[in-house]
Amino acid sequence: MAKDINPPRGMRDFLPAEKANRESVLGVIKDVYSSFGFQEVETPALENLDRLTSGQGGDNEKLAYRVMKRGAELETALTTPSDVDGLADLGLRFDLTVPLTRFYATNRASLPTVFKAIQIGPVWRAERPQKGRYRQFVQCDIDIIGDDSVLAEIELLTASLATLDALGLTGAVIRVNHRELLLSLLDSFGVKEADRSSALITLDKLDKIEISGVVAELSDRLGESVAAKAEAWLEATDVTVPDVLAPLFAAVAVGRLRFDPTLVRGMGYYTGSIFEIEMPGSGSAIGGGGRYDGMVGKWLGTDVPAVGISIGFERVVELVSAPVSSNGVLLVLEDSSLETINTAIRFQKELIATGKSVRLELKPKKLNILLDTMLEAGFTQFAVVSGGSTELSFKALGN
Amino acid sequence: MAKDINPPRGMRDFLPAEKANRESVLGVIKDVYSSFGFQEVETPALENLDRLTSGQGGDNEKLAYRVMKRGAELETALTTPSDVDGLADLGLRFDLTVPLTRFYATNRASLPTVFKAIQIGPVWRAERPQKGRYRQFVQCDIDIIGDDSVLAEIELLTASLATLDALGLTGAVIRVNHRELLLSLLDSFGVKEADRSSALITLDKLDKIEISGVVAELSDRLGESVAAKAEAWLEATDVTVPDVLAPLFAAVAVGRLRFDPTLVRGMGYYTGSIFEIEMPGSGSAIGGGGRYDGMVGKWLGTDVPAVGISIGFERVVELVSAPVSSNGVLLVLEDSSLETINTAIRFQKELIATGKSVRLELKPKKLNILLDTMLEAGFTQFAVVSGGSTELSFKALGN
Repeated sequence: MAKDINPPRGMRDFLPAEKANRESVLGVIKDVYSSFGFQEVETPALENLDRLTSGQGGDNEKLAYRVMKRGAELETALTTPSDVDGLADLGLRFDLTVPLTRFYATNRASLPTVFKAIQIGPVWRAERPQKGRYRQFVQCDIDIIGDDSVLAEIELLTASLATLDALGLTGAVIRVNHRELLLSLLDSFGVKEADRSSALITLDKLDKIEISGVVAELSDRLGESVAAKAEAWLEATDVTVPDVLAPLFAAVAVGRLRFDPTLVRGMGYYTGSIFEIEMPGSGSAIGGGGRYDGMVGKWLGTDVPAVGISIGFERVVELVSAPVSSNGVLLVLEDSSLETINTAIRFQKELIATGKSVRLELKPKKLNILLDTMLEAGFTQFAVVSGGSTELSFKALGN
Repeated sequence: MAKDINPPRGMRDFLPAEKANRESVLGVIKDVYSSFGFQEVETPALENLDRLTSGQGGDNEKLAYRVMKRGAELETALTTPSDVDGLADLGLRFDLTVPLTRFYATNRASLPTVFKAIQIGPVWRAERPQKGRYRQFVQCDIDIIGDDSVLAEIELLTASLATLDALGLTGAVIRVNHRELLLSLLDSFGVKEADRSSALITLDKLDKIEISGVVAELSDRLGESVAAKAEAWLEATDVTVPDVLAPLFAAVAVGRLRFDPTLVRGMGYYTGSIFEIEMPGSGSAIGGGGRYDGMVGKWLGTDVPAVGISIGFERVVELVSAPVSSNGVLLVLEDSSLETINTAIRFQKELIATGKSVRLELKPKKLNILLDTMLEAGFTQFAVVSGGSTELSFKALGN
């Protein structure tokens, strides 16, 4: 009997054409990042659960998939079943930043003083499934750890824009702000230090609820006075690039950065510049990042400056498609005799040596269906082989 | 305070040099498999737990990491805490074969009649950590689903050997046997159908406990008569290639296959030919596979012929190392002035356009340490840049 055979809810299978496109886009991203001197590293998909839930990952921590203990440890944990947290000891990473800072702390003795990392891989979040939001998805991060100068930001922004350009997303623009500017702003509104997070969460909703919504929420949460000052500021927003961000605008290609004094970014760990990549026509941001100088210190005991930016691969891959390779050749075996098989394998070997991708197929009853399928799969030519074939007569697929 | 900062037990971080080598080896494997007309697909790392533990995965099922339910479902499950199985609903895949058969059942309408799949990705097993055995490791599988002819076996063996050759493992040999031969053999020993698994498990230990050990264990488990017949056979093993395997030996390059009538392979799901890849000098097998015609039917309700082979990536990557690319150039910035940064970025852009990987670094107090680190990382040249630089004077690293 057939069973329910879908992948787990919110997770996806990738068929050959989609997988090929994804790999091709990932290849471009890796190549461009590498050309800027970044080096790829990898961490395990699982991290110890207490590290994933130590307050570094913001709201995402709540979305971590928890992996149950095993063997004797599980038996012990089950004897105190009220302690649900004690049943799990590992978690699937929900981003690549928390693992990277752990990686840096673990391996710092073997890494250059200024560590320029590429990380590309899946992350998992137990989010409510919805259109365009998945429970397993790929992130592409570059980070620079150990450089507190503005050179680090400039390199990240330059490399990211070069990557987007290489993917044909030449219209992408990076919005930039700075946490210190936001904090001064909140001070000027009269927001107390204890209310900063609350105020930033409200301000972050500007795109969705507009000025009137933000003002109403601030009024509810923090009083009339704060709301009134915020309203006045929001209606007269000054987009003159401030001194602290001026070097970025002077170094990065004109028109590709935009100062946005209302940009917040959700994560609590940002300490300096923050970025969000937007692409005209795409409904939501296609990437983002910022400086997080305090995070490595949580593992290491001493702070190390760090800044990173992430390309949202799932958004990007929807916007671009790589050309399908056209080096595929189909050899149709007239019969399944050993002589025919051996002849086909000999031709296959010769063709592969010339750079072709060569697929063998026994001649099916309905050859046309096979030919159509292979044309869709990007194969361009076919020939029929039998045991006595001494040369191949190729025909174009799709004619 | 610094915390324990290692990756989870049995799991690994990959630093830049090792990651580069792994990616390079994976690239070769993918390219050769693709040249034989196989197409890459991907499934999620997680599968529904009941599918992973439905008896398809043999002993590996016990090693599956279980992922806890979330939200309301977890609350409900916790009210019946004696039912530990009810606390988890997902599991990390422990191989790529069980997910592939599920993938085929899910997506068969969109796949060619004969589906030739490449799958490369991590799997997870909660094994006792030991040297050379990891809890997250990469498998590289090719499978052909929908072809019951010997052409499928021949293609898998030919593509695998070509892949190993491309990695420089030209000494690799594939041992071959057939489940039906093993079953006839057991019949001839007088093993009852109910005792077949037990007998095969014992026979599979031949490499470790030798003939005397196998005979003693068979005697204990299945009696003197079976043991005596097995002993006689083991001491006079006939390695004449049997008819059922003759086409493989006729089609695959001479000397690269070896008939081994004692080869068992652990998994219960094999129904026909079985393979194990060995490399002289490597302590254990570097891959294996076989025909599993009954497995897709478990999901689909109707059987579909299937055969696959897997290269054990972690073993292979220890045996080969790819050449380090030598296109890396280091630009050392004399100072952190914006003028110097902009000059460096301009040169970087020009050099990247010529195919170089160009890393920028602010001049550190100890330049020699930086130069040594970059030499180790595969960079070959460096130049110092200042704001007024109009051309670069490159020096070789390591001189």
